[in-house]
Amino acid sequence: MTETRALSRSGLDPDTAARFTHSAVTHQDLSGFREWWAERLATDHFAVDRIPFAELDKWHFDATTGNLEHETGKFFTVEGLRVSADGESSWTQPILHQPEIAILGLLAKEFDGVLHFLMQAKMEPGNCNIRQLSPTVQATPSNYNRVHNGGATRYLEYFKGADRGQVLVDVLQSEQGVWFLAKRNRNMVVRVTGDVPEHPDFRWVSLNQVRQLFREDNMVNMDARTVVSCMPLAAPRSDRPWSPFLDALLKSYEDDLALHSQDEVNSWFTESKAECEWFRRTIPLAEVSGWTRAADEIVDDLHEEFRIVGVNVEAGNREIAKWKQPLLMPCRERTAIMLVRPIAGVLHMLVQATPQAGLRDLVEVGPTVQLPESEHTEKRFADIAMTTDGSKVHFDTVLSEEGGRFYRAQTRYRVVEVGEEFPVEVPENYCWVTVRQLTDLVRHEHYVNIEARTLLGCVHSLW
Amino acid sequence: MTETRALSRSGLDPDTAARFTHSAVTHQDLSGFREWWAERLATDHFAVDRIPFAELDKWHFDATTGNLEHETGKFFTVEGLRVSADGESSWTQPILHQPEIAILGLLAKEFDGVLHFLMQAKMEPGNCNIRQLSPTVQATPSNYNRVHNGGATRYLEYFKGADRGQVLVDVLQSEQGVWFLAKRNRNMVVRVTGDVPEHPDFRWVSLNQVRQLFREDNMVNMDARTVVSCMPLAAPRSDRPWSPFLDALLKSYEDDLALHSQDEVNSWFTESKAECEWFRRTIPLAEVSGWTRAADEIVDDLHEEFRIVGVNVEAGNREIAKWKQPLLMPCRERTAIMLVRPIAGVLHMLVQATPQAGLRDLVEVGPTVQLPESEHTEKRFADIAMTTDGSKVHFDTVLSEEGGRFYRAQTRYRVVEVGEEFPVEVPENYCWVTVRQLTDLVRHEHYVNIEARTLLGCVHSLW
Repeated sequence: MTETRALSRSGLDPDTAARFTHSAVTHQDLSGFREWWAERLATDHFAVDRIPFAELDKWHFDATTGNLEHETGKFFTVEGLRVSADGESSWTQPILHQPEIAILGLLAKEFDGVLHFLMQAKMEPGNCNIRQLSPTVQATPSNYNRVHNGGATRYLEYFKGADRGQVLVDVLQSEQGVWFLAKRNRNMVVRVTGDVPEHPDFRWVSLNQVRQLFREDNMVNMDARTVVSCMPLAAPRSDRPWSPFLDALLKSYEDDLALHSQDEVNSWFTESKAECEWFRRTIPLAEVSGWTRAADEIVDDLHEEFRIVGVNVEAGNREIAKWKQPLLMPCRERTAIMLVRPIAGVLHMLVQATPQAGLRDLVEVGPTVQLPESEHTEKRFADIAMTTDGSKVHFDTVLSEEGGRFYRAQTRYRVVEVGEEFPVEVPENYCWVTVRQLTDLVRHEHYVNIEARTLLGCVHSLW
Repeated sequence: MTETRALSRSGLDPDTAARFTHSAVTHQDLSGFREWWAERLATDHFAVDRIPFAELDKWHFDATTGNLEHETGKFFTVEGLRVSADGESSWTQPILHQPEIAILGLLAKEFDGVLHFLMQAKMEPGNCNIRQLSPTVQATPSNYNRVHNGGATRYLEYFKGADRGQVLVDVLQSEQGVWFLAKRNRNMVVRVTGDVPEHPDFRWVSLNQVRQLFREDNMVNMDARTVVSCMPLAAPRSDRPWSPFLDALLKSYEDDLALHSQDEVNSWFTESKAECEWFRRTIPLAEVSGWTRAADEIVDDLHEEFRIVGVNVEAGNREIAKWKQPLLMPCRERTAIMLVRPIAGVLHMLVQATPQAGLRDLVEVGPTVQLPESEHTEKRFADIAMTTDGSKVHFDTVLSEEGGRFYRAQTRYRVVEVGEEFPVEVPENYCWVTVRQLTDLVRHEHYVNIEARTLLGCVHSLW
């Protein structure tokens, strides 16, 4: 770097947004991808079996706290959390504590002028379907520093160190605030221009193809979804037949058309955080009440929340072929819904300032409705959000949460349009925002929760 | 709000920046202010005396944890913290825990087209000089909900509730990360147009006057400084004689002249957070080692860090006339220095990604040098920063930290210019940023620590 170098603009780089957008709008079919995907599935050797905790040989319950820990102290622990909400209700629960920050990295490269991303057909023990489409790198320091004595993490060198490529996206983001304590990962997109060796489990996929794949059940994994949601897209054009909905959607990507200014949105969110009267404290797992630890599970006494279970994994293409670990297994499928509505011809999303006990700041911007746990949700919104009127349901797909920590955790993601009969005035914990505004918020940590980020990706798939 | 309302731009409101800038550049003398200030000092009745903990009648040490607490559980507690830094050093220390979010609010109104701010000559028990210039409202929920049965908080209604004015600034910001655990306050500027009753302790002050007052020892209090630092200023003009330094400084406010793009700055900061290997856990105060509790103080055995002491306060113009409370009393004056340097004709500030044990995310953007505690500081930078060459020292003033929690806590703030002999290439925990870029970061929580925010305000005072 020298002083004669041209000084660069300080705002969002328009070149970066243009590159992503070009990759998103350039139609590419999926036939080659399908062929590769089928080949990958054919090679699979993968078995996951539940086992009692006593057989999790490198994991143990601490004699004093009862916390479930790995012998190295790494990976994650299962601890207890005491939560007091609004001075009215309080509860205790187990929670996953993983202070390490993983890299979720997508390697990007242009082919024929179109940005492609090196994506992985990755096995995770919690996946309901063995493989899902994942980022190039998805690894904690415990993984890539080889605490488990496994193989090296492929392509890590493109994301760490001085010789990495051009960083297009680099932001910490939270993960599931109902299950993780203060968890966050580093979402990265790095662009390279040189040759990249291709491992058979990896394939270059354009953003247009990713958008198509978003609509398939349990295809694009959580880690890929959050990185995609962090990509800034400029106002796109679409080749699809024009409709009023599509017109309103595309306008939602423009930077000067919103019901509220970004300052107003930020002030709404600041107020939501300042007024939140939730408090939490970690406690020993042994002090969590209303939950019972048996030989092979820890579960709440109503069997409504989740189980902590142990699994034995045998895999053919991971860094290590056999391992045992705990996983969190939800008792129920969850649902996350974004209500959307054209306001003055511009599609707006109705987001909620959502408290979740594990979030670092307790509150982030979430979808309109998150079921079952969002007690602050307006019931009338939840009723509308579950409509079966197909003409209003623009997206309705079951997607998986992170298979490295969660066992068959599935969420139904829905984008549901409401019309002019739906009020523009909403309760104070809600706010209407455009795609562009939510995109501005995901440039920073602590704003948008993982469910809302996934739904932002779902909205990207609608044009 | 109706759908026919014009949709507003989503970026930084240029009108808001223009209003602040106009108030900053319009010269106004301080003679009227001086008269009012002298009158205020003449009315003072204020006595602060140190007392033993046993006489802090509404405060007690918890029998189990040893934590120092108020009988209501409100205000704040003194707890213990265990910190492990970079896997190398670890320590325990007392820390102030105050989960409540206070409002630091400046009421703004235009007089003759120039925005003025209603500021208060406010007594705080820890102030070395009794009164300092403070925001309109500076109050925690414990204060304004009258936990202490005191009087109502003046002007609070302009900051809370549906009838408040136009919100110009509204952002949560951290406070001293070496003394507070995860503390933050809500920094607000609210503009009104109607009549505002004036209490004699309050006076309308323009931003130009605030900038002049910044250069006086212990005049503008911490709470006012942080709110001022959150005000966006557009590229100002100055009536002062032209100099190369001034020219470079004013260019630093423009939005397209920076060594690094804002994306690069954000990526640098993300990496700093991701690589930070500090961990902390709250512990009972009784378990803090290396500190001794006597009848009238808790202090580290080397007498280098700080004391927790008790004081008896008698005041004539606060919500309540007499009270007793603990305060944190630093053993030493601290120093915070920003090195600045023109790069390609544009002034840049050399900021450091600074870990502090009490910060929510452990790392925020801090000054080049913070003494004594910043062990990550380059010694060569600290040596340069303490230069006595007057031609290079653009700002050198002793300012007080929050007098409601800290007893005579003073920090020497310095802005020191370095020349072309100082390298543009800096270690990876440092980054050169412009005024405009730091201003963009303070629009969000979790980025810029209180010392760097104060120094941003100091830089504002240089033209």
